[in-house]
This record gives sequence, C-alpha cells and structure tokens, in this order.
Amino acid sequence: MDPVRAHHGHREGGRVHFPDLMPLADALPRLLDQIPVLDVEERPLLNAVGQTLAEDVVSTENVPPFPNSGMDGFAVRAVDTPGELRVVADQAAGHVTDVAVSRGTAIRIMTGAALPEGADAVVPVEDTDGSSGGSVRIHSSAAAGANVRQAGEDVRAGQLALPSGSLLSPAAIGLLASIGRPRVRVFRRPVVALLASGDELVGPDEALSPGKIRNSNSFTLEAQIRQAGGIPRNLGVARDNLDDIRRHVDEGLRADLLVTSAGVSVGDYDYMKQVLEERGELRLWRIAIRPGRPVAFGVFQGTPVISLPGNPVSSMVCFELFVRPAIAKMMGQGRLDPPTVEVTVLDRVDNRGGRRSFMRAIVERGENGYSARLTGPQGSGILTSMARANALLDIPAEMDEVSPGDALRAILLDWSALV
Amino acid sequence: MDPVRAHHGHREGGRVHFPDLMPLADALPRLLDQIPVLDVEERPLLNAVGQTLAEDVVSTENVPPFPNSGMDGFAVRAVDTPGELRVVADQAAGHVTDVAVSRGTAIRIMTGAALPEGADAVVPVEDTDGSSGGSVRIHSSAAAGANVRQAGEDVRAGQLALPSGSLLSPAAIGLLASIGRPRVRVFRRPVVALLASGDELVGPDEALSPGKIRNSNSFTLEAQIRQAGGIPRNLGVARDNLDDIRRHVDEGLRADLLVTSAGVSVGDYDYMKQVLEERGELRLWRIAIRPGRPVAFGVFQGTPVISLPGNPVSSMVCFELFVRPAIAKMMGQGRLDPPTVEVTVLDRVDNRGGRRSFMRAIVERGENGYSARLTGPQGSGILTSMARANALLDIPAEMDEVSPGDALRAILLDWSALV
Repeated sequence: MDPVRAHHGHREGGRVHFPDLMPLADALPRLLDQIPVLDVEERPLLNAVGQTLAEDVVSTENVPPFPNSGMDGFAVRAVDTPGELRVVADQAAGHVTDVAVSRGTAIRIMTGAALPEGADAVVPVEDTDGSSGGSVRIHSSAAAGANVRQAGEDVRAGQLALPSGSLLSPAAIGLLASIGRPRVRVFRRPVVALLASGDELVGPDEALSPGKIRNSNSFTLEAQIRQAGGIPRNLGVARDNLDDIRRHVDEGLRADLLVTSAGVSVGDYDYMKQVLEERGELRLWRIAIRPGRPVAFGVFQGTPVISLPGNPVSSMVCFELFVRPAIAKMMGQGRLDPPTVEVTVLDRVDNRGGRRSFMRAIVERGENGYSARLTGPQGSGILTSMARANALLDIPAEMDEVSPGDALRAILLDWSALV
Repeated sequence: MDPVRAHHGHREGGRVHFPDLMPLADALPRLLDQIPVLDVEERPLLNAVGQTLAEDVVSTENVPPFPNSGMDGFAVRAVDTPGELRVVADQAAGHVTDVAVSRGTAIRIMTGAALPEGADAVVPVEDTDGSSGGSVRIHSSAAAGANVRQAGEDVRAGQLALPSGSLLSPAAIGLLASIGRPRVRVFRRPVVALLASGDELVGPDEALSPGKIRNSNSFTLEAQIRQAGGIPRNLGVARDNLDDIRRHVDEGLRADLLVTSAGVSVGDYDYMKQVLEERGELRLWRIAIRPGRPVAFGVFQGTPVISLPGNPVSSMVCFELFVRPAIAKMMGQGRLDPPTVEVTVLDRVDNRGGRRSFMRAIVERGENGYSARLTGPQGSGILTSMARANALLDIPAEMDEVSPGDALRAILLDWSALV
C-alpha cells in the first residue's frame, strides 16, 4: 500500500478505518510540496516592506556618488594638520563650492557635503577651536582619508546590492532607495480566504440561544493570517448544509489559499469534507499531534485548501504548523520553519498517547537560559491558556512524560520571551 | 552642576563644549519618562490586533455556555459502557434535540453539540463500530465526563478573562470573540511624523546632480515606524532653511510623535536644531554609543520630538534604541526592551573609544547556542551591512576589544536567528 494512502481514512462496510496516525514530519513536506510560490509583482518600495525580493538588484550607481564628509568640520589637506588654517569657503551638503583647498587653507564642511577639490581629510569640529573669524585651529594630526566617505564605499555601480530572495527589511528598503530604485519586483502576498463552518456558531455581537456557541476561529484565523503576511478574505461562517458550504468554498477557491475550520473529521455531518471531495482529491490526514489531529489538504482549480480542526486551540496550533509555512512559501521566503528556542521545562507533563504535543507555555529568560511552564489546562477548547501563552512547547511523541529540568524546544508565538 | 545639564552641549565664547558623553542607560529613561501613554480608543476586535488592552475584560458569559461534546461520537451514560446501545436521536452542533439519553440508549453527537439530557459522557466514533442500523457497539468503558466540555470550562461568567495591559495576540482576539466582546478598549497607536532634512537629498526616482545624494532615511524610518506599530506620516524632506524647516516641524507637531533625521549635531548649518530650540527646551545629547551619538529630545506643544543623526545606519540604530521603545510606551506596552539573545562572537572586534557599540551582525543558531559574526565594514553610512544583518551586537563601552569566543548580547532585528 502506498505509504501516503496508508494514512488516509477510508470507509469499508460503513466503518471508518484509520490504519495509523501520520507524523507531522511526513505530512508537512507533502503539503508544502504542493504549495506554489506566487507570481511576481512590481511595487513601490514602501508597499513592499516584509515581502521577498524576486530579482537580483544590481546597482547602477555608486553610493555615495562622490567622496563626502562623514562629519561636520573642516575639509583640509592632512599634511597641514595640526595647525592654524585659513577658512576660505563653506561647503554645505547639497551644494558645490568652486573654491579648492590649498596649502594652509580649510573649507568648513557639513556632513554629507562633497569633499572639495584639494582636500583629502575632514577634521571634526570637536577637534578644533570651532573657528573664530577667518581661521581655525586644528588640534591634532589628521590621517589622509579621515572622516571621508569614499565614492562607492557602500555600493559600487555594477555591484549586486541585494540578491533575489532577500526579505525586504527596513534596511533593505533604505538600501534600495539609496541606489535609486523606487520600485521593486517582489513575490506577491497571498490572498487567504478563511471559512468557519457550523450551525452552532454565532458572532460576538449576536445573542446566544440554546445550542449556540460563539465563533472565535474566524477571529483567530484572520489575525493569524495577517500576522503571517497574508491578506485575509474573511468569508464568515458556512452553515451545515451542502449548498451553503458549496457556495462559500467556491468563493474561497478564487483566493490564493483557502483555509477552512471544522468539518473534516470522521463525523457524518462533515459536509465540508463532502464538498471538498466533490472538487478533487482531498487528502484526509490524522496527524500524530496534540492538539490537532484531523487536517485535510487538497488543491482544487489550482487553489490549495487547508482544512483545520474546529476546536479553537487545535485550529490555532495547526495554523502555526501548516498554514504559516504555506503562506511563507507562497511569499517566496526561504526559511519556513517557526522560530524556536531551547527551554528547560519547569513542570511535569503527561504525554502518554504516542503523539507529538504542542503545549501552551510561557517561556521566560532566566540566569541559565530559557524556562518553560505550561499555562494551565491544555484542553483543545481552552483559549484562555492559549491567550496566556507566548510559546508552544514541542514534546516528542516518544516522550511519555516530561520531567522538570528536561530540555526541549519551544516555538515562539511572539517576542516576549526574549525581552 | 545638574548631572543632566552636564551632558548638554553649550556655547561659550563661540566654542562648543560637550563636557562628556552620556551613557545610553542614562539617556533612555530620561527620554521615556517624558513619553506619554496615549489615550484609549474603542475598536472592533480585528482592528485591534497588536494593540494593548486598556481595560480589565470580565466575561459576562460562560465559555462554553453549556456542557458539550469534545468529539464526534455518541452521548451515553458512562455506566452503560461498554456494550451495545440503541441510537435514539442525532444531536448536531447548533441544534437541540428534545430526546434524552436513558438506560441502554445513546444519541449520536457532533463536536460542539450540547450534551443531551441524561448523558454524562461522549464515546468517540473511533471507539465504536460506527453505528450500523439503529444501534452502536461501544468497545470500551467510558468514564463519566469523558470528552465532555463542561460549561464555563474555558471562562466562567464573572471571571477576569484578560487583564488590562494584555497584548492583543490572535489568541487574545479569539478569546474576546468567544466571550461575546465585539469591540474592545485599547491604547491608541501613535501617529508618528517623520521628517528628513537636507539640501542634498533627492528621492530614488529623481536625477542625481552634483553634490546630491539619495534620501534613504525617509524610507528606513517609515518602514521602522510601521514595524514598531506606529502609523507613519511621512513629511518628506525639509530643505536647509529656517522657513522650510519651521513649516515642516509645525506640521509634524500635530502628530503624536515627531521623528526628525539630521540637523542636530554641532554644525552651524543645523537649522533643525535652531527651529526646535525656538519651540522650547531641546535636550541635545551626545550619547556614548557607536554608531549614533548626537540625539536631541524635547516636548513641544505636548508632542515629543526625537531628532536622530543623519547617517543612514546611525539613524536606524538610534531608532531601535530610542524611538521603538517610545512607540511601545505610547501604545501602553509594558515591556520596552528590545528582544535579545546571548551570542558567542566569532570575530575579533576593535572597540576602542570608550563607547558602547551596536555592530551589525548575523546571528545564527549552532550546536552550542547562538553565534554572531559582523556583516562587514561598520561605517555609519554603510547601509549594505545593515541590510545583511539580522542583529545588532551590543558591545559594552568598557570592552576595548572583543575576541573570538567572547559571550555578548545581540538585539534581534528579525526572527531569522531563531529559525
């Protein structure tokens, strides 16, 4: 039997069989293999922050374009220092004097101003008497080239300034501006449609009637998509009937990625699964993780669909494990793994059941590295423990029990552990 | 002499005196002390992601609101398991059956559906024969309460769900949705005006003429402000004359924070300094850091102004050190320090000069923790080395030289060191 199919549930005489659970390490590459890197768009620099460069950017200019002063001070001939020099002109940034520096003279110069003809060094104003009247006293000896920024010192014309694949950080954006590139080619951000499902769901501003619970997944998922760099398209809630789900799913398939929540486990009411299976091959995975487990994946009409479990915490954790790297890949990012740190666990944790667990934890820095303690009850419906967490403690399937002092890895959900 | 004033340059007989350099650890708290936490606004949940909660949120509801099933399966009386039970009804999520579970019967139930009257446990479908016809075989014994999520298990009515000061992460947003809070009170994000200055600056789409260089600070600063959570208002470039600077500064003072770049060092052409001094007390600091040094701070008409050095790298580094924590404080955040990790330095670094240095570095995780190597020439104009860096290596003023193997701290600029 095909090792992939072995992980798919299949029906046989009305009974559902799941021969075994699939390790995350098997499922994730299979999913990511089918996620495309999106096409390239050209954007104004400041609209491309956080995107990935889709071209090798070669500079056509020297940066700086001419030798200029790195300090406010006096442009001099190094050989004339120290000593009293006659100040023959002012050179402000952005202006060009036609006076040259010659023996025994200096030109008052501002940071960024072109080094005048004849000068080979700049003496900072602090190393002088500040100039009174027409002369300046230079207190000490200056080396040739001191406080001069040479033409092309940062970037030379013809040089590769930024390679394709670079993340456009603030510094990268500044570098592109500095070489005269107002627009840049980047991989497009994905539009990520998100769809919750269930007759029981009501919004936070609606009345709760018997049997109804509040929809939180539409909120967590939209926030997560945005945080991951995607452009969320929130399709709201599909009700538990084929027509409503078909209509919402077809709308979702117009996005670059569709993320659905709930409706792909083994239950008979899982219309979501049925609708997705109408549209092509749906891989139904029971992943050997906790929380989480049922995750489905398919590519329909060219659009990848990731179906997450409905429990609020399972949905969030599976988003971190599957959707965030998928969005990163679509955006052309090279590194798809989540940020992690090594931690020393402070609690005793029961992990029987042979599944890799991602437990909500608070990671803090102490004297001897980072520590992790759980945030409380780990039920997959318990959002409070997720809201208090800044990390997910990654417990290997083989570890039946974690003891205080054990060293493990934790996925960071925000920066707070490092502050 | 007042210890603060000792750090201010003052003119005396035409000479500028800077009695000494001010340590960063002295300057930063003085600046942050005068930064206000902004006022509170009410926002729809999904527009508040990343902001700080400005109220204690007490839940008025139980979450979940009623006992419900944590699995797809069969609602049973635990005492009836294992055994063959008659299936008397279906309980879908969002619907309420009026049939109760009684001795020898079960109700087929979906995840999230209310636990029917009479039942005290749910048996997952995997632990049954899946039900054929009107009966189901339960393979093993279920404990009372198994797979039942009790009312109020996540949040009880009356409980503090999220304390004021909480960062609104995706999980926190979901938690607020789950307790029926569609809007929330948060500290406002600051509008941060940014103003570059200098006759020499031209944009990336303009022609370079003699003496002109390209403006990169407007780009790095706008990207940094956005990354820090502020709302940038880019005022462009003020030219080196009093009228133009006055007009731009007065526009900037209508924002919550004004960040200016260049024009506050000791040079005579520093009109920016003159314009700011017209508006109130400007603290001119020469900070004992590299790169950086001249930073000015004042509060004018109630608006804090932070004036950064003009060199591209100095401007970026001083933004990280001064402006990012100021924005965090305005947004009500409790932790203002930058994220750091301990690193082992791989290079030899000359740090003579008695200043604390922030050197551009690449931090990577290895077998024995994190390592840091410099990204190349560290001139304060050299943006390429900043664009390649993912961290700033923090070298104490007392260390004249860093040797390979030395342990130091590095400020992380992005997540890449942890991936």
